[in-house]
Amino acid sequence: MSETVGGRLAVVGLGPGDATWRTHEASDRLAAATDLVGYGPYLRQVGTLGDHQVAHPFPNRKEAERAVFALELAASGGDVAIVSSGDPGIFAMAAAVVEELHRANNSGRWAGVSVTIIPGVTAATAAAARIGAPLGHDLCLISLSDVLKPWDVIERRIVAAASADFVLALYNPLSRHRPWQLQRALDAIGCHRSPETPVVIARNVARHEESVSTLSLGEVDPSSVDMRTLLIVGSSTTQAFTDRTGRSWVYTPRHYPNSPVGSRD
Amino acid sequence: MSETVGGRLAVVGLGPGDATWRTHEASDRLAAATDLVGYGPYLRQVGTLGDHQVAHPFPNRKEAERAVFALELAASGGDVAIVSSGDPGIFAMAAAVVEELHRANNSGRWAGVSVTIIPGVTAATAAAARIGAPLGHDLCLISLSDVLKPWDVIERRIVAAASADFVLALYNPLSRHRPWQLQRALDAIGCHRSPETPVVIARNVARHEESVSTLSLGEVDPSSVDMRTLLIVGSSTTQAFTDRTGRSWVYTPRHYPNSPVGSRD
Repeated sequence: MSETVGGRLAVVGLGPGDATWRTHEASDRLAAATDLVGYGPYLRQVGTLGDHQVAHPFPNRKEAERAVFALELAASGGDVAIVSSGDPGIFAMAAAVVEELHRANNSGRWAGVSVTIIPGVTAATAAAARIGAPLGHDLCLISLSDVLKPWDVIERRIVAAASADFVLALYNPLSRHRPWQLQRALDAIGCHRSPETPVVIARNVARHEESVSTLSLGEVDPSSVDMRTLLIVGSSTTQAFTDRTGRSWVYTPRHYPNSPVGSRD
Repeated sequence: MSETVGGRLAVVGLGPGDATWRTHEASDRLAAATDLVGYGPYLRQVGTLGDHQVAHPFPNRKEAERAVFALELAASGGDVAIVSSGDPGIFAMAAAVVEELHRANNSGRWAGVSVTIIPGVTAATAAAARIGAPLGHDLCLISLSDVLKPWDVIERRIVAAASADFVLALYNPLSRHRPWQLQRALDAIGCHRSPETPVVIARNVARHEESVSTLSLGEVDPSSVDMRTLLIVGSSTTQAFTDRTGRSWVYTPRHYPNSPVGSRD
């Protein structure tokens, strides 16, 4: 027997929208939970709660506080789910929870809590699915938020990714407090990529008022982008076309110039 | 009315293993399908089929042929699912299907087929969930297979990712026909990363005989790696620790040195 009577904590990835693109394990743990902890909009994304369930909404930011609160609830015997949109390990809550476990490891605080991380469909692969297969080749996922990291680190990564011909998925591209970063990022990419390069602009994927469109790199206007938008910037081989029904498609072939085509291992 | 009587094709991401980490939409489309097309092991991953369902196994490679076969079946009125492990847009079948649609766009072949891509949990986020949150910061997904692309393109990407301090998730690290590529990749990363850097070695995640372990970059032995393994190489800030129960954890904090900690937007 554990010396602490502990409950359990699941760090749940909700996927990009409603339950359609949520995993079965995520749904099961959400249904079983006594307590749900998360940023307010993510808690609403869970859907209607049962009578036995309590929602604990948190403001944005405050991730460490959210993690500690959820671990404390679980330590007192709760069946707790802390929720993130998308995948909890991609720019979301899992790192904050594990960092708190690390911090508490010497003290033994929360040692009786069973912690599980439940992956989800992340925004980049969800957006990609709507428009075809823009991520078909090597890719980078980069958060443009410089709240937690210096801008020069971000810009160095963007330049490295663009110069090595990665597809780039840009998370958290812009907010009221970060108005100029996206244009800087696009300018840096533009030094290594043609202005004709397809860019997918995906907003509210799998949610109400979803929109997914394709522009060329030269056409992207940051003033039409917000925090609910994800951008996918193609590589040199990314293709865009419109089919006979008027549907737009973007894909990055898995084969690369000067390689054999149509085989893999 | 469409001029072609067409069925429909879903390009389904199965997630990393059984239905636990599969989305509800993926399960629904698999259950409804009259025909399932895929590489043999992925068809077995679907589980038991109904009496009304026909499996069409394909050998590995031959992705273009698989895509054409599935589109033809759908064009003749079938309710077809073409399946990939993980996410179909990450080093999998979605790009091959969309490329065939592009190729056929002028002829109008398959114009009556309704094509949907259903995302899944990709191997990197599944492996990450088992060990904590190693992908918590900016990351690259790179396939080490040089069957479809030249090795110098891959190596250039690895060097760019390592020098800009990305976390690297290495897909398809090694096969019988590609024995030396992983060591070359690790050597390139080692020029930019300490030998103490945590590396997650994840094999058969969410499947029978799953194993997920952590080594340091200096300890990784390619002879213990195969095609069913995914490697996650940490950045300069990635942390590894063992908790009081003996469980191993790896995480990459979202904050970066010289930045404010504990906030985001």
